[in-house]
Amino acid sequence: MADDKWTDCVNNLKGVILDMCGVLYDSGEGGGFPIEGSVEAVKRLKASDLQVRFCTNETQATREKFVAKLRRMGFEIDITEVFSPAPAVVAVLKERGLRPHLLVHDDVVPEFDSVDKNNPNCVVIGDAADYFSYQNMNAAFRVLIGLKKPVLFSMGRGRYYKETDGLKLDVGVYMKALEYACDLEAEVVGKPAPMFFEGVLTDMGIQPHEVIMIGDDLMNDVGGAQQCGMKGLQVRTGKYRPSDERHPTVTADGYVDNLAGAVDAILKHCGQ
Amino acid sequence: MADDKWTDCVNNLKGVILDMCGVLYDSGEGGGFPIEGSVEAVKRLKASDLQVRFCTNETQATREKFVAKLRRMGFEIDITEVFSPAPAVVAVLKERGLRPHLLVHDDVVPEFDSVDKNNPNCVVIGDAADYFSYQNMNAAFRVLIGLKKPVLFSMGRGRYYKETDGLKLDVGVYMKALEYACDLEAEVVGKPAPMFFEGVLTDMGIQPHEVIMIGDDLMNDVGGAQQCGMKGLQVRTGKYRPSDERHPTVTADGYVDNLAGAVDAILKHCGQ
Repeated sequence: MADDKWTDCVNNLKGVILDMCGVLYDSGEGGGFPIEGSVEAVKRLKASDLQVRFCTNETQATREKFVAKLRRMGFEIDITEVFSPAPAVVAVLKERGLRPHLLVHDDVVPEFDSVDKNNPNCVVIGDAADYFSYQNMNAAFRVLIGLKKPVLFSMGRGRYYKETDGLKLDVGVYMKALEYACDLEAEVVGKPAPMFFEGVLTDMGIQPHEVIMIGDDLMNDVGGAQQCGMKGLQVRTGKYRPSDERHPTVTADGYVDNLAGAVDAILKHCGQ
Repeated sequence: MADDKWTDCVNNLKGVILDMCGVLYDSGEGGGFPIEGSVEAVKRLKASDLQVRFCTNETQATREKFVAKLRRMGFEIDITEVFSPAPAVVAVLKERGLRPHLLVHDDVVPEFDSVDKNNPNCVVIGDAADYFSYQNMNAAFRVLIGLKKPVLFSMGRGRYYKETDGLKLDVGVYMKALEYACDLEAEVVGKPAPMFFEGVLTDMGIQPHEVIMIGDDLMNDVGGAQQCGMKGLQVRTGKYRPSDERHPTVTADGYVDNLAGAVDAILKHCGQ
């Protein structure tokens, strides 16, 4: 990426939002491992004048356990800096007095401890992975088809992600399945929903044009951020595929080999 | 339904196509059981001057086993009268030299014995039921995403069906899931694909306007038949729901309580 493009990109920059899986680390058996240079890159970013937040659609664990895993990998991350869909959907459920049937990974269930789940009047779907059995899908479907006004919340709408042993289907695929089965449209909580990004911006107390989002997912990270008025950079790690750089509708503000490269360029062109 | 509407409906009538599950029988544990009056209704229809064919999206068993099950229930059905998606998709695979990865019920696999399945260059999906595990979905997805031109055949596009213990998700739901995951459009083999109905008409040697299709599925049976120029009756058995009679885009040529009622009226107004 040319210097003048970087200068434009970091103009007015006050904060950076980082996607986690595929940017900080690659997931897989045993929790995964950090992507080369990412631990150090986060450290340098946090030592700068820029605000840093982490924004993930991860719903296979509670935020507590997820942050603990990343700290074990060496990342300096505090739970208050991490935004994930489960706490956001819990807030929505409470606000609207909804009682969810959960189609989620067992390990994220504790996030819903404070929510009444009796006599469900909506369904919440997350990245349930192996819990996406035919039986569990039927159970969620029967709740929805039995409701007068079926409501489905999807924690993200990703198509797939990369683990160390290959690509795996993400929550969006099963969201589409239930949408078709019940002829409805899910409410997405998580990236790329604007409300989700806006929650992060509010927490930072800065404007969209003062923020860069860095992610490996062209649609959900880059496209989602751009729709909110932020800049979006795509890293060539994680689920990145070369065809992303020729996508017909979404073009990142920049492509970088990895997070370390992105942070190098940002700090250099910010004069830090 | 008024007499004059029936008279119009059976005008020129030379043949009847019957959907099977939800019209002849209700499926469920142990294979299901016949719907009251249906065994006798099929007998009367076959004793008339009308041609009779059976048209199913059933893909949980080979045609042989499926017909044997119905014969055990008392239905006078010959295998040559039954049209199902698996033989149809096998014909397409051979014609186009395609080698499938199968995401189907174990019991339908023998239908594909004559097809080369090494080094797959397409995916065939059927009503796999419990075989729709996360693991099997990932395996099919990885074949598709690894192909330059991914091809997905779906044996039907139904949303759900009714078994004795409740509603169950059908193949169309998982077709939609893989379509979204891979950003492609599946080729549907089975109802409501016009080519599938046309194969039945060719076998009967009569014209669409000379045929009535009777089914419990408003979209796939009734709507599909109407799009081919046939009449479509909906029975109020199987997966029928009262809201079907107020559907915004598809209106059956008639609604009848069950197959027995449909056959009574057809034979009466045909003067047989």
